Amino acid sequence: MAGIVAFAVTAVLAVASKGIDLFGAVVLGVITATGGGTLRDLVLGVPIFWATDLDYIWVAIAASVVAFVANTLLTRKEIYAALLYLDGAGVALFAIQAAGKAWGLDFGRPLAPVILGIVTAIGGGLLRDLLAGRPNLLMTRELYATPVLLGCTGYVLILQFLPEHQVYGAIGCGLTIFGLRAAAIHWNLSVPDWLATKPKPS
Amino acid sequence: MAGIVAFAVTAVLAVASKGIDLFGAVVLGVITATGGGTLRDLVLGVPIFWATDLDYIWVAIAASVVAFVANTLLTRKEIYAALLYLDGAGVALFAIQAAGKAWGLDFGRPLAPVILGIVTAIGGGLLRDLLAGRPNLLMTRELYATPVLLGCTGYVLILQFLPEHQVYGAIGCGLTIFGLRAAAIHWNLSVPDWLATKPKPS
Amino acid sequence: MAGIVAFAVTAVLAVASKGIDLFGAVVLGVITATGGGTLRDLVLGVPIFWATDLDYIWVAIAASVVAFVANTLLTRKEIYAALLYLDGAGVALFAIQAAGKAWGLDFGRPLAPVILGIVTAIGGGLLRDLLAGRPNLLMTRELYATPVLLGCTGYVLILQFLPEHQVYGAIGCGLTIFGLRAAAIHWNLSVPDWLATKPKPS
Repeated sequence: MAGIVAFAVTAVLAVASKGIDLFGAVVLGVITATGGGTLRDLVLGVPIFWATDLDYIWVAIAASVVAFVANTLLTRKEIYAALLYLDGAGVALFAIQAAGKAWGLDFGRPLAPVILGIVTAIGGGLLRDLLAGRPNLLMTRELYATPVLLGCTGYVLILQFLPEHQVYGAIGCGLTIFGLRAAAIHWNLSVPDWLATKPKPS
Repeated sequence: MAGIVAFAVTAVLAVASKGIDLFGAVVLGVITATGGGTLRDLVLGVPIFWATDLDYIWVAIAASVVAFVANTLLTRKEIYAALLYLDGAGVALFAIQAAGKAWGLDFGRPLAPVILGIVTAIGGGLLRDLLAGRPNLLMTRELYATPVLLGCTGYVLILQFLPEHQVYGAIGCGLTIFGLRAAAIHWNLSVPDWLATKPKPS
Repeated sequence: MAGIVAFAVTAVLAVASKGIDLFGAVVLGVITATGGGTLRDLVLGVPIFWATDLDYIWVAIAASVVAFVANTLLTRKEIYAALLYLDGAGVALFAIQAAGKAWGLDFGRPLAPVILGIVTAIGGGLLRDLLAGRPNLLMTRELYATPVLLGCTGYVLILQFLPEHQVYGAIGCGLTIFGLRAAAIHWNLSVPDWLATKPKPS
């Protein structure tokens, strides 16, 4: 739920400066907040999570409306920073939850749970950036998806080899994702040069 | 069917001025016309509507070809205006039909049928704008999705509290969506200032 | 598998000049290589192909990593040309395989198998271009999708009227797609003027 709120709010704030109306803002917030999980459930072939528990949608709508009304307040520097950390926490929760759900369904072990963790964590953000016409996170060198990859891989290894420590593994791997993401935000880290191609001068 | 035709035709016309070939135009027309309903059926977990009744695809293909051939005629001012109204009628039909289908399947009542009505009505247009590289309707202040929200909400309220008037409710709410959309086209209405964020000068 | 490799490699090379990090490159490569088939299986309502055989994902990851590491080598003119032909072969394989799979499931015969052949063959490329922020193939006049249309239509006609020659039909139609595509690459063919709208001077 915290992840839903964070995703909806950051989506609305990302486009608020472009002159968007309330309805467009809410649709974008809801798509961002629920898009990753919807993709996950479609691929898993299970009922979409928000159809069985409508609270997810209500929360996403409410968060989007609040973000729309308070956008001038929330884009203040210190509050926006707090939201980035909340977004990092949301990413961590979404990723671990998705990997665990796929693992529990015995879906394409061991690789597919990692893939679905990543898809769920970044899928909503990709949809947001596509619809908002912004460059998306795959095209930048921000340290965003790499923590998710590490955390989900670690979690899957624990589920495979130490299934009796599943709960601690989930907590530990979730904290790892959040910690790496928070460090990336705090120190403004990006992917090192040797792991990136050089952009051609254009 | 009228909606399919309207969506396919407006999609082809939207990109005709960019220099597109016949095949690309038909693919774009078919995606726009069937994309919203395909998303709806995927989320509902039911067979895709056009697989069981291929006429939808044939009609979309035929409409796209006609629009491609006649694009210089159809972009004439008075005819294009007529198409906008047809598009509004298509949106109304798609939205009410999707909300009713989701309701009939007892899918996430009462909120999810409204969501699916909106997704079906605007999904095809969002795909079209993404593929055509145009700003999409969420990013503008055109009065497009708000009528759909109002109409679907009204229809769901009728299904909940006055199920014996289901048929009249569908007709009334569909006409409401079309009426609001037609008014928005006729008087060039957009979302009022107090419901929109100010775009920052850039 | 050859198609998976070709799609992943060309996707990574397409964005390498933009300054992308290893992780983003791999995600983009995997999405491009598996996106079309994932869409196909979602629409067909069957389990996603890469969940039952993880080798597809492993191959896509490996090919993306190799393409990332060797991108300065692979963008050399003669090698890139070879990759374009490999991509053409991948398109041909994907299209025929998808059309055959849909036909075998008795899915919306006779039209839907053709549609799914096209969706599978070009879906990955459309996703790649959307995520990479490039103009996509529907918006250009490159002779890309038309060979797919012709080949799939021919294959469906053979499945319908000459089912005893199914294997030869698949090979023949696949070679037709590849041949047309190779000719388009070799002679730099594009869709003739009379099949395209004139772009307006802007």
